[in-house]
Amino acid sequence: MSHLDEHLIEHRQDSQELFKGKLLHAFRDTVTLPDGGTATREYVVHPGAVVIVPLLDDGRVLLERQFRYPVGRVMIEFPAGKLDVPGEDKLACAKRELLEETGYTAKEWAHAGELHPVISYSTEFIDIWFARGLVDGGRRSLDEGEHLDVFTATPEELLQWCREGKVTDAKTLSCALWLQNVLSGAWALDWRP
Amino acid sequence: MSHLDEHLIEHRQDSQELFKGKLLHAFRDTVTLPDGGTATREYVVHPGAVVIVPLLDDGRVLLERQFRYPVGRVMIEFPAGKLDVPGEDKLACAKRELLEETGYTAKEWAHAGELHPVISYSTEFIDIWFARGLVDGGRRSLDEGEHLDVFTATPEELLQWCREGKVTDAKTLSCALWLQNVLSGAWALDWRP
Repeated sequence: MSHLDEHLIEHRQDSQELFKGKLLHAFRDTVTLPDGGTATREYVVHPGAVVIVPLLDDGRVLLERQFRYPVGRVMIEFPAGKLDVPGEDKLACAKRELLEETGYTAKEWAHAGELHPVISYSTEFIDIWFARGLVDGGRRSLDEGEHLDVFTATPEELLQWCREGKVTDAKTLSCALWLQNVLSGAWALDWRP
Repeated sequence: MSHLDEHLIEHRQDSQELFKGKLLHAFRDTVTLPDGGTATREYVVHPGAVVIVPLLDDGRVLLERQFRYPVGRVMIEFPAGKLDVPGEDKLACAKRELLEETGYTAKEWAHAGELHPVISYSTEFIDIWFARGLVDGGRRSLDEGEHLDVFTATPEELLQWCREGKVTDAKTLSCALWLQNVLSGAWALDWRP
């Protein structure tokens, strides 16, 4: 942001905890608007997360099917997880989540970008990683209460599902944009061991 | 969902209101897991929203810059808004939000798809609409406390910003996937007056 944004920026006057649950931690802040007025902003504080686009050697991608209670549907998603281990960096989190949820490790990783799923009421960001050189260790270790299927699809199938409405998860749609442009060569990645 | 998903589906036992604020309305449900165990699910109830990809006659798209308090940044976004008028259908909401936020009306509309921004803790869905035949009425009517800039960019600029991390809003990234495939001819839209 620059001084050119001053006519848009809101400044915190006060912050009040609304609620601390097992998952949700919500606040209501009072802010000064750019025009000098006052408003309240309610939002959820989130530690951030990672999502992984796992590229198999045969050109397919690794995906998950998981029931998501708030939307009441089984959703097709790329593997993802929260940055909830203190001190763990994002790449380490991506490696851990890929292994825990799918049983796979990867020989090479590339950082793609970042996304903000819900900028109107959550601080959440999701860091996007690509993984290749995948090896199936055959051993998942899901969190308690976590049930999900792992499966593979071609990028063409995934994009078709995005078009048909079979994929509606925003992080997975955002990753599909990355995948399409990486595979076409339009967007380059910096791969590292 | 089909009976093939029974090993994934969670069933509600009980629902408890956690908090009702001015914006956030949160619940904690107790659910039966597929393995017969019990877990709690905390989530925000949201009325749903629409997002609009406005195509100008010169090939540019209409975008907004808006400060989003929870993420503390000025974000580049497609116009969007909540389904918060009782009885209003999604297309009517898209027309209203485009007019209110940008001052533009559109001669033709096409429904693209749907996205779920945050399937782990919100019921929110966002319906994606394309608009063309845009006419600038020159008159915006922003909600109280709403401050935003309207500007235009080429689709190439927008995609470049997605790649560079200047666009990180998930609904806008998801719309960029739609835009890229609609413009290439890969994904067809059904335009209506």
